[in-house]
Amino acid sequence: MQFVPPLALQSGAQIRGYTLAYETYGTLNVSRSNAVLVCHALNASHHVAGVYADAQGGVQAKSEGWWHTLIGPGKPVDTNHFFVIGVNNLGSCFGSTGPMHVNPDNGEIYGADFPVVTVQDWVNAQARLLDALGIQTLAAVMGGSLGGMQALSWTLQYPQRVRHAVVVASAPSLNAENIAFNEVARRAITTDPDFHGGHFYRHGVIPRRGLRIARMLGHITYLSDDLMNAKFGRELKRNTGAAEGMVRDAYRYSTQDVEFEIESYLRHQADKFAEYFDANTYLLITRALDYFDPASAHGGSLSRALAAASARFLLVSFSTDWRFAPSRSREIVKALLENRADVSYAEIDAPHGHDAFLLDDARYVAIVRSYFESKVALELGP
Amino acid sequence: MQFVPPLALQSGAQIRGYTLAYETYGTLNVSRSNAVLVCHALNASHHVAGVYADAQGGVQAKSEGWWHTLIGPGKPVDTNHFFVIGVNNLGSCFGSTGPMHVNPDNGEIYGADFPVVTVQDWVNAQARLLDALGIQTLAAVMGGSLGGMQALSWTLQYPQRVRHAVVVASAPSLNAENIAFNEVARRAITTDPDFHGGHFYRHGVIPRRGLRIARMLGHITYLSDDLMNAKFGRELKRNTGAAEGMVRDAYRYSTQDVEFEIESYLRHQADKFAEYFDANTYLLITRALDYFDPASAHGGSLSRALAAASARFLLVSFSTDWRFAPSRSREIVKALLENRADVSYAEIDAPHGHDAFLLDDARYVAIVRSYFESKVALELGP
Repeated sequence: MQFVPPLALQSGAQIRGYTLAYETYGTLNVSRSNAVLVCHALNASHHVAGVYADAQGGVQAKSEGWWHTLIGPGKPVDTNHFFVIGVNNLGSCFGSTGPMHVNPDNGEIYGADFPVVTVQDWVNAQARLLDALGIQTLAAVMGGSLGGMQALSWTLQYPQRVRHAVVVASAPSLNAENIAFNEVARRAITTDPDFHGGHFYRHGVIPRRGLRIARMLGHITYLSDDLMNAKFGRELKRNTGAAEGMVRDAYRYSTQDVEFEIESYLRHQADKFAEYFDANTYLLITRALDYFDPASAHGGSLSRALAAASARFLLVSFSTDWRFAPSRSREIVKALLENRADVSYAEIDAPHGHDAFLLDDARYVAIVRSYFESKVALELGP
Repeated sequence: MQFVPPLALQSGAQIRGYTLAYETYGTLNVSRSNAVLVCHALNASHHVAGVYADAQGGVQAKSEGWWHTLIGPGKPVDTNHFFVIGVNNLGSCFGSTGPMHVNPDNGEIYGADFPVVTVQDWVNAQARLLDALGIQTLAAVMGGSLGGMQALSWTLQYPQRVRHAVVVASAPSLNAENIAFNEVARRAITTDPDFHGGHFYRHGVIPRRGLRIARMLGHITYLSDDLMNAKFGRELKRNTGAAEGMVRDAYRYSTQDVEFEIESYLRHQADKFAEYFDANTYLLITRALDYFDPASAHGGSLSRALAAASARFLLVSFSTDWRFAPSRSREIVKALLENRADVSYAEIDAPHGHDAFLLDDARYVAIVRSYFESKVALELGP
């Protein structure tokens, strides 16, 4: 959907003539009360549910929506009852206006000139989309990781427009280690000679080396130590052409060739990612993560910051998530309880680390189902 | 010290005409029974104790020995009683023969042709140094992190030559996550266009971009999450020229400039490191870490692997070390106990993460002192 009026950004800049890509699933009811907005994390898009007939737009290797475990007909967020909206954020590379598009101010590709966008900016843009769709109030806003930050921010920026917020595997802000990992990834990209200060499009190149490093590093932080040991351990990469089960047991003694399966896996993930993800988008999205900190405007008090919220909350965290550990979700729960908010919290004992929020864990899925059936669905009008 | 006879390496290659840089502290006693060998980790050298009059050889920013908290006159490893030997490993860039030296086979700088060296190779080279110094048996061998792996390997390769082994903040092998972090660092270096397949010396360049990324990443894994939060948190970098205590409280809204103190700190560490550390050495040392796995030759049984050891052991780990977590030290302790070995183990509750092994923690220092006074020193002859 195209938006003509400029959007004022938190930085003081503005963006005009922008497009938001979105998808919807299910039907908006007569009272317009059954809308659920789904916010995405770093490497995802508006394609949250369903399956594309063909792999469109390079959004995902698979054409399944990224939250298809939770959203669809008969699923925990049942699109037979709810009208689900997936929206791609500004600055992304999956359809909405981003750094690879033309800056209407000068007719050139934005590149590094794309304005810095924040979680608050994204929420404002999403609110405009809802206005255009004729939806005043959301039955729920939901998201995982960075998407959870957007859901939380919705309850503070538009408290009257959100009945429920589902915040999964998220945090009230990044800590120093989170920022540090983001910074390493950004430096890998910006110091790649093919980055050209962010204007690589003009040079017909892509800073693939930097994107690969960023992705490898990101991947490590999405997985748990235990899962990596279970899945890869110290297993050596099989020789090319070796039969399944033919494990190599001797080192090659090379510093540059692949020795271990985990190396091979990371290189493969990195190569795929560098082919479809935009380098400037990576910088923008990691910065949006860095900047999110609702407590900062309240003297560092998350409790005071969350006083603005009137939604009811479901928070979910995963035991082995060391990127956004359960303790970070508990900070949010504690601050909400200090405001006597209605909050449900589940800490799922799952082996998958941060990635668990995207996976089909029975207890996790059951909790989301139960919350939507027993709390969100009951309030829907005709 | 120069060594003429070739050293056969685990890879099948050999190295000839090599030099080992070493330092000694204290005096070898008449019965030659008071020698303590100290093995170093990734970014360290033979300069383990004392203070250089001037910063020599670019070994460290400070001219203090890297284990000066533990080693010196009156210190836990008291050089009034012990003859301490610090040795720089083959492949390093701090004095011993390494990739930046001339390959005697063809008269060219080794670069990427420097043979892959392992913990076992280093121990073999160290044993030759002891032979040359006329030392048959060590009162103790000690090291932290990768140095601890060497100490452990000494007890397996030369069980009759080691009375005590002190293994600090170490592990019996890297796990998948450890290897993964090493691989990201290596890929950052080897995909830097200035790496030239490891022969960058010929081109008069240094793959500084890759070295910087490697160092930033390494640094994150050396520190604990808690320490980073305490030291940096989400504090913004002060404006240049701002007075101490003048904290900036507004974002710059930039994806490429420094916003947070933690970013500034990491960039500074990275810049320093890239000026003195050799890129090929980084690859070699991380690979030596990857390869170390004494259990692998015993069907994966660490217990069977450690059956060869006859030394007595002190193991120390640190509660917030997530690189080589206490559980990894406990694996070694368990395997030693299964062999009815004499083993002392201390798990120190310290906030500093992996770096704690280099720092002046009172309980840690006291435990090493007590071990050397009550166990190691008592057995010394005249």
